Amino acid sequence: MISVQEALQIVLKNTLDFGSEKIPFMKSVGRILKEDIHADRDFPPFNRVSMDGVALDYTSFQNGERAFFIEGIQPAGSPQISLSDHKNCVEVMTGAVLPGNTNVVIRYEDVLIENGIAKIQLEEVAHFQNIHAKGKDRKEGDIIIHKNKLISASEIGVLATVGNSKVKVAKQPKVMIISTGDELVGVNEAPLDHQIRMSNVYTLVSLLDRLHISSETDHISDDKPILKQKIKEYLKDFDVLLFSGAVSKGKFDFLPEVFQELGVDKLFHKVSQRPGKPFWFGQKKGCKLFAFPGNPISTFANCLAYFYPWYYKSTGIKTNDETAILTENISFKPNLTYFLQVKLSHKYGHLLATPIKGNGSGDLASLVNSDAFIQLPKDQKEYKKGENYPIIRYR
Amino acid sequence: MISVQEALQIVLKNTLDFGSEKIPFMKSVGRILKEDIHADRDFPPFNRVSMDGVALDYTSFQNGERAFFIEGIQPAGSPQISLSDHKNCVEVMTGAVLPGNTNVVIRYEDVLIENGIAKIQLEEVAHFQNIHAKGKDRKEGDIIIHKNKLISASEIGVLATVGNSKVKVAKQPKVMIISTGDELVGVNEAPLDHQIRMSNVYTLVSLLDRLHISSETDHISDDKPILKQKIKEYLKDFDVLLFSGAVSKGKFDFLPEVFQELGVDKLFHKVSQRPGKPFWFGQKKGCKLFAFPGNPISTFANCLAYFYPWYYKSTGIKTNDETAILTENISFKPNLTYFLQVKLSHKYGHLLATPIKGNGSGDLASLVNSDAFIQLPKDQKEYKKGENYPIIRYR
Repeated sequence: MISVQEALQIVLKNTLDFGSEKIPFMKSVGRILKEDIHADRDFPPFNRVSMDGVALDYTSFQNGERAFFIEGIQPAGSPQISLSDHKNCVEVMTGAVLPGNTNVVIRYEDVLIENGIAKIQLEEVAHFQNIHAKGKDRKEGDIIIHKNKLISASEIGVLATVGNSKVKVAKQPKVMIISTGDELVGVNEAPLDHQIRMSNVYTLVSLLDRLHISSETDHISDDKPILKQKIKEYLKDFDVLLFSGAVSKGKFDFLPEVFQELGVDKLFHKVSQRPGKPFWFGQKKGCKLFAFPGNPISTFANCLAYFYPWYYKSTGIKTNDETAILTENISFKPNLTYFLQVKLSHKYGHLLATPIKGNGSGDLASLVNSDAFIQLPKDQKEYKKGENYPIIRYR
Repeated sequence: MISVQEALQIVLKNTLDFGSEKIPFMKSVGRILKEDIHADRDFPPFNRVSMDGVALDYTSFQNGERAFFIEGIQPAGSPQISLSDHKNCVEVMTGAVLPGNTNVVIRYEDVLIENGIAKIQLEEVAHFQNIHAKGKDRKEGDIIIHKNKLISASEIGVLATVGNSKVKVAKQPKVMIISTGDELVGVNEAPLDHQIRMSNVYTLVSLLDRLHISSETDHISDDKPILKQKIKEYLKDFDVLLFSGAVSKGKFDFLPEVFQELGVDKLFHKVSQRPGKPFWFGQKKGCKLFAFPGNPISTFANCLAYFYPWYYKSTGIKTNDETAILTENISFKPNLTYFLQVKLSHKYGHLLATPIKGNGSGDLASLVNSDAFIQLPKDQKEYKKGENYPIIRYR
């Protein structure tokens, strides 16, 4: 049985390149940028007025002039006008081009306007004040968003500004999610006493939605020939198969045998962790198989702990490892990495993790009260209040 | 001019109730639950086998019995069978109903099976071991998800389990986003020297998408009669109007006048903050108007600092205030609350905020390199490395 670290390394060595595609920029939030975005002109593209007021010639002001005849007006969105007499001024609006022959903007708050004359109420002004100078933020040709950035609302405005109405992003993998287990019935069915409703496929669909991956789903009964026939087809049609169930020691846990018979290359089976120990990972040609144990918390934790990093690495996103501070002592005897559910809170810039005691990997409802897993290393038995460990958030 | 705290209080006193609607549960991620979700049966609904192995009678084991004839098999998804002889055992699979007359499960790892006899390799077992007892997680009728929860993947599995294929969530507000500014041209246009492409509407659409709110957009030229006529219609048709631009001191900043002429009740205009000072907030009947100044960072910061909390309060979500620790000394003289862009990182469970020096509220591209605003209070001029302040994340 391999460790969580070894398992993760193997998973991350076996990434896929999904290729790239051009999509409308307004559909690109949550996707991964696959081109550098360059400034198509200087930013700002002109000396830009940054306060409403009057623009005038700095030298005139320095020479003692305080009353300026208003020669004209320069609204935002109008072609540049120029001051014809350096003793005059121009009214200017935020976002306008700075008029020619001016190099200072005095905001309205510091000006008294009477009979077409602007009287400056200041004794000192700075050259180029209230002017956002051409090219100050970025020069034409500069990279303003680097490749492999996860696109968020903050990038959308920049893409619009440089006119990238289409943007090159990583394609998403084609994913099929397959649940097994004859005890499962549909959400709309009334389960008999020995049955339960299926939940893992829906959880997995939602976890993939969070990555903006749309997926297909199937439920296959615990019948070996049917499993084999269906998986054989799916191996051809999908980049990723995610399974929940049928990978442990049960008499109807047919998946490992089926995978072998279909020529799938097993990369590992079983990881020294709780929950989620019987995780099986393998590949056949371009298709990767993540077979998670069927307990709800096991499936959930493994999708976050393995599929997510695999997807991030495949698409080129760099992620930040996050740690949190335990608020209670935890004792855990088995020689396993422990993915413990925690509730997160914040205090004085510290991220605090309070353990939520669930009833094991079958206790799906316990996820509702927690926000993350904290990953407690297997070479310890005691984890003390105040110590910090890596976390995996799911909210 | 009011403070950020006063402005936020006024905004939060003027929330709206958007009502509720039933939607398919698989569409509900990111929406706010508006009903308590109850357990429709005990969880687990039966004494559930939690390891593959054999089930037997505890008393027989205690009486020294170690070899048990395998009487039958209890797969997951099959009706319960019962042990006919307490000296025998039943093979059981994870997820199966515990067979009648048994009360211990021994996992396969601790059993040697030969000729139909299971020989137990343990000297001690615990009553009910490897059995997830009926009702241990939740009792029928218990609330398993409380009203006003923001639904995530973790809730989806629970909703499926209890058969809530439809779920009652808060309706979303009808929002119109309106930009102004004659310097703006479309994303697909080539701007003239004095023009720039519009970006704020797209940023706002994306920020609302993050809340799963779909919105409509319009761009209105800086022409008072047209503004008035269009806004008059929008006031009737929408719950919220978000504006960017035309609320400052410029000669073409017509919005405050237009609002007044249309009988909109002004709740405040101008907040002692940077960026975003000229923010205007008001209402007319059921419609709330958030008019943000047009500089990109101002619009962005104000949407996060005011519209987001307003939406959270309107829908009933409780949010956690988050703070981060400055990694550098900051000096800021104006008597204004400073929304400073920061890059976030994690160390030893601490959330660190490193200031990103942009070139003022027009420097949209600076958002690409930062993750959040840190909110520095206006009654200070110096903010020291190591001190913690509230943050507003946008990634």
